[in-house]
Amino acid sequence: MSITEELAKFIIETDFNDLPENVVAEAKRAFLNWTGVAIGACRHPSVDIVLSIAKERGGKEEATVLGRWEKTDILFTSLINGMSSHIFDYDDTHLETVLHPSASVAPVALALGEKLHLSGKTVLTALILGMEVECRIARMVYPSHYDIGWHITATVGNLGAAAIAGKLLGLDTSKMRQALSLAATQASGFREMFGSMTKPFHPGKAAMNGLLAALLVEKGFTSSSCGIEATRGFIAVTSSEKDWELALEGLGKDYEMLKNSYKPYACGVVSHPIIDAGIRLKNEYKIVPEQIRELCFTVNPLVLELTGKTEPQTGLEGKFSSYHSAAVAFVDGEAGVGQYTGEKVKSPEVIAARQKIKFLPQPQIRKEECILTAILGDGKKIKLHVEYAKGSIRNPMTDSDLRDKFCSLTKNILDKNQINQLNEMIFKMDRLKDISCLILN
Amino acid sequence: MSITEELAKFIIETDFNDLPENVVAEAKRAFLNWTGVAIGACRHPSVDIVLSIAKERGGKEEATVLGRWEKTDILFTSLINGMSSHIFDYDDTHLETVLHPSASVAPVALALGEKLHLSGKTVLTALILGMEVECRIARMVYPSHYDIGWHITATVGNLGAAAIAGKLLGLDTSKMRQALSLAATQASGFREMFGSMTKPFHPGKAAMNGLLAALLVEKGFTSSSCGIEATRGFIAVTSSEKDWELALEGLGKDYEMLKNSYKPYACGVVSHPIIDAGIRLKNEYKIVPEQIRELCFTVNPLVLELTGKTEPQTGLEGKFSSYHSAAVAFVDGEAGVGQYTGEKVKSPEVIAARQKIKFLPQPQIRKEECILTAILGDGKKIKLHVEYAKGSIRNPMTDSDLRDKFCSLTKNILDKNQINQLNEMIFKMDRLKDISCLILN
Repeated sequence: MSITEELAKFIIETDFNDLPENVVAEAKRAFLNWTGVAIGACRHPSVDIVLSIAKERGGKEEATVLGRWEKTDILFTSLINGMSSHIFDYDDTHLETVLHPSASVAPVALALGEKLHLSGKTVLTALILGMEVECRIARMVYPSHYDIGWHITATVGNLGAAAIAGKLLGLDTSKMRQALSLAATQASGFREMFGSMTKPFHPGKAAMNGLLAALLVEKGFTSSSCGIEATRGFIAVTSSEKDWELALEGLGKDYEMLKNSYKPYACGVVSHPIIDAGIRLKNEYKIVPEQIRELCFTVNPLVLELTGKTEPQTGLEGKFSSYHSAAVAFVDGEAGVGQYTGEKVKSPEVIAARQKIKFLPQPQIRKEECILTAILGDGKKIKLHVEYAKGSIRNPMTDSDLRDKFCSLTKNILDKNQINQLNEMIFKMDRLKDISCLILN
Repeated sequence: MSITEELAKFIIETDFNDLPENVVAEAKRAFLNWTGVAIGACRHPSVDIVLSIAKERGGKEEATVLGRWEKTDILFTSLINGMSSHIFDYDDTHLETVLHPSASVAPVALALGEKLHLSGKTVLTALILGMEVECRIARMVYPSHYDIGWHITATVGNLGAAAIAGKLLGLDTSKMRQALSLAATQASGFREMFGSMTKPFHPGKAAMNGLLAALLVEKGFTSSSCGIEATRGFIAVTSSEKDWELALEGLGKDYEMLKNSYKPYACGVVSHPIIDAGIRLKNEYKIVPEQIRELCFTVNPLVLELTGKTEPQTGLEGKFSSYHSAAVAFVDGEAGVGQYTGEKVKSPEVIAARQKIKFLPQPQIRKEECILTAILGDGKKIKLHVEYAKGSIRNPMTDSDLRDKFCSLTKNILDKNQINQLNEMIFKMDRLKDISCLILN
């Protein structure tokens, strides 16, 4: 069984009409979410740096950097948009493999889509297939691949990017196999880099590599025909245990896209039930901080293990403090990028709220669950039960939630009109004749 | 002990005056050999393809593609020159690790040297340090890294390229550590790709990656400070056994450059003693094919194991046929690129010679050794003993041999004047004020 060949055929032979409606709908949601996080981070210093290197190289203005509306060549544009979408750690997640499936494929879809004036249907189809290939390869090698130290979003991202580029460039099966192999042999990225600009660089670079692979193979560059499964190929070299079956099982019927999830809050998922509870206390019960004597959260023990910091000093540390997450949820009624800044963790109002928070770890509480007991100044108690945190598989973000997230991420960069326009266009993306209309400059 | 830190310091603190004379002399030989193989392969279809992709991206004309004298940006130029130098499998070898040390570092040296108008001393210094870093990291992880399936020239090439770029860009220690780490996390390349254009693509891409790493870090991009030795860094993730000591042992005193070797013939080293014998029979004994009844080579058993093809049909198969190698050595008096073509393996004269050749494998014969017994038509016997094949550590190629090799590689691309000019300039490279004079257009 040649995995590379079967995946290549699947990519080439599947067209828009073969795709279930719910898969297409999910792809639009994924693309909206991806666009929002990429635009949101577009002014980050790491984007400035890569863009300046691109400008110094002086490539043609082929495609656009999201949010900045500056153009550079498609390779560098893919690198930058892939990177910016991962800067906030706020992009989509294939929970089974901790893969962020959009990060490396969406930038290639957008860059080629813009340059070649492709239709929304064409781009959505490629996006779905690129993510499918990535997720399937990730499932084969997870968890050993990740445990060894590979940043899975970086490694399999190369293959997803080649798949999407190959589909959009119209490669035949033989070339698609070689493009996947040429991408596989560029796969890299160590978890050691987490905490530096290099983490989001990984999926950006994977997008660039995968696109380069497809561009080269299109012109006759040669590679292996079975780079995924060969004895000295991707799977064998980068993982100690693998489940070969998962590559092709249900291919064309079961879409991994349907298992994609989106974060409603800009921190690790383990804090999400707590944030849900804090926001409900503020919004549904109309409680203000001054009324509170104590907030006690009954939680899964993992919460304090992973996010037990009591006095975070930086925005990044704030993400690892459920005390902080609970406090901002209750004080601000949200937990977006603006709630995890150096300023916010030092805000007196937030610090005061943090000091009223207690956690009671209990193993019988599920990871998506928490119980909040709020004790008011007058001794009154309010009890709130979050069964499944927003954004979990059982309680997914609604389209409206995703619109709100998009708005919150982009409100300092786009005007209201632009925000509405992008939302509308992405939700009806399958009717766009030329997706370059998504470029608003 | 932080390997990344110590190597970074070594790179930054070492200058031309610290380098032993024999190391500098060897660096010029390595650079001449590298330039020759890169120019020799500059018309290969894979070069056409990558260059066309570079032209389509439209980067500035910052640096020159060797032999073609066309320009593109420094990233693509490094990719192309790194790739072309490895196309013939005829570049230098650090025998202990099967690393080809020039492939990824020399292109970066040349691209930045040309763009920044650097002196020969500056470029030679960086070249030596880049190769030193590569070889030391390779020694740490060899053989487990290679056995797992990594193409070692590709992986450690990223680090060598970052080292040389960082040195030439004048990074400080903190930035050099991050550049090495940012390069390490891009390291990739599977042995599965051998036999396709992707094999030589590997060191070219490593050159591009390493250069990109240094360019980004120069502007403030952040990465790990210990990407080589970290728990989830390069060494740990990509090798099962490692010898940490080899990274720093004798650093600044013992130079791996002195263990660099050059191939006199365009095939695997195992056939080299046989070729030596064939050439001597023709040149010293003035024997012509018609006089020969049988040529019997007593050889190490590895010869037939690795290169036992009796009737090669393509140039590449010719490299894996010691019958063919012996035949061309005796018929043509050489075994360069021109002896391993589809035409040559089918030449009636060569086929006739091949049929007179026999091998007698004997375990007591060393790999660098062979004994040739030639039986002439009149029954007369000639016995020839090659103790150490040319190009082996005990019988290195002389400067004059390297000049001849350079000439043979480039004679269809450069005119005589240009060949002499390049030879002269590279042998006195430490006196060049601006190495961009090596660009002949």
